[in-house]
Amino acid sequence: MKIFNKVAVIGLGLIGGSIALCLKKQKLCGKIVGVSLHKDTILFARKNKIVDECSQGLDIIRGADLVILATPVDVILKLAPQLAKLLSKDCLVTDVGSTKRKIVRQLSRIFPNFVGSHPLAGSEKRGIKNSHSGLFIKSLCIVTPQKNTDKRSLSRIVKLWRTMGADTNILSPSEHDKILSYVSHLPHIAAFALMESVPDKYLKYAAGSLRDTTRIAASPSNIWTDIFLSNKQDILKGINLFLDNLGSLKQAILKNDKSRIKKILGSAKKKREGLI
Amino acid sequence: MKIFNKVAVIGLGLIGGSIALCLKKQKLCGKIVGVSLHKDTILFARKNKIVDECSQGLDIIRGADLVILATPVDVILKLAPQLAKLLSKDCLVTDVGSTKRKIVRQLSRIFPNFVGSHPLAGSEKRGIKNSHSGLFIKSLCIVTPQKNTDKRSLSRIVKLWRTMGADTNILSPSEHDKILSYVSHLPHIAAFALMESVPDKYLKYAAGSLRDTTRIAASPSNIWTDIFLSNKQDILKGINLFLDNLGSLKQAILKNDKSRIKKILGSAKKKREGLI
Repeated sequence: MKIFNKVAVIGLGLIGGSIALCLKKQKLCGKIVGVSLHKDTILFARKNKIVDECSQGLDIIRGADLVILATPVDVILKLAPQLAKLLSKDCLVTDVGSTKRKIVRQLSRIFPNFVGSHPLAGSEKRGIKNSHSGLFIKSLCIVTPQKNTDKRSLSRIVKLWRTMGADTNILSPSEHDKILSYVSHLPHIAAFALMESVPDKYLKYAAGSLRDTTRIAASPSNIWTDIFLSNKQDILKGINLFLDNLGSLKQAILKNDKSRIKKILGSAKKKREGLI
Repeated sequence: MKIFNKVAVIGLGLIGGSIALCLKKQKLCGKIVGVSLHKDTILFARKNKIVDECSQGLDIIRGADLVILATPVDVILKLAPQLAKLLSKDCLVTDVGSTKRKIVRQLSRIFPNFVGSHPLAGSEKRGIKNSHSGLFIKSLCIVTPQKNTDKRSLSRIVKLWRTMGADTNILSPSEHDKILSYVSHLPHIAAFALMESVPDKYLKYAAGSLRDTTRIAASPSNIWTDIFLSNKQDILKGINLFLDNLGSLKQAILKNDKSRIKKILGSAKKKREGLI
């Protein structure tokens, strides 16, 4: 069912590419165009018909009634003013950035019909080559309106994600950033620091435990540098809490406090088992 | 091919149960008996014919020419003197404990033909119900002789693990404990502390990153309390290094030092991608 005439996806990575494939598969739009800075991405997108047209330049987006920004957070912030000049005021705009406070604040001023989104459907396997039309099925997408967000635009963006197979949850941008700092950003901090802590010469002995805990340490450095800096305050609070908890466990081991260690481990086990 | 007449497995958890199933499948022994403290484990083992005979008492092991200790580390240390009284001096003895220094030192004094082992084939899914005969295929088993370990016993234990499908690697007990503190014990410390750091009310937003990094936080508290205390010095060094690396990342974020963050993340990514 066609609900948009022309959709423009800015940034054709895993998320942008998967959105394009999903919208095409479900025939949700008349035409879909893509923008990427990378020549090889454009070649791949053309060859595999991920979008109808694509280019490195932004002019291609003129006339779109839905624009989805799917680049790293700092690129979203940089591009927004240039995009606004090419779009009508009626155009619905969303983004898929991993932090929301800064983006929603700035983009709401630039686009009259902006609604922030964050699909929790990433992977350490980034890039258009890994994109697929089913990426959002049974995933969760957090939609982050402000008080002054247009109600009709909000319901259209919610409908868009649901049509792509995601459950949606509405949170304020600051609630989103606080929650994500614990359930996504902190695990990444832990994985990067843990990987750095294992001497190279011991890596050949890595079993499942190290592999699982550090899988996401293979995530792209530029995207995560950007996420950490754009959600700095919440992330620092999370790191401090993590350092406290590591410190407690360290002290209990240092003091041979068996019952204290068992209590900490038991509590963590119970929480982990509670994750559905 | 039968290489033992009577094998006794002490402790019928995931590892003990899988060893029994594998030895039976490959017809490596004439008879296999099991000992477990837990009545339900004994019932399960009997019902599913995991061993030929099993009991809560130790008497059943008399006459064995191979004994495998597959209980938590502290139980191995406690049981060893009692077992020695029931076995001939020729009996080959090994264990599967996750730390080796303490076990090898003590058990080498008790059993003339003792060789320590550590199959890196665990899972957070413990217990006899998860055991299967293929658990060790393509896994790594570290065998940890001392200088005075009998050469023939060593080669028999190496052969045993290889026959069960594992690659083997020979390390001294202290090398083993040092390496494992980084590639296994520290990831567990990180996972337990990370799980404790996520507020309960946010758990429903957990995506793949938190799930992967904390999978092993569901591991049994008693076994891991025991591992942490039996390899205390190495683990404390690992925790300190991890705290340092977390501290560096925290400082870089605090100072908005984009290039430093990128460098840390890039280094971690490169290491992670190097894990085969």
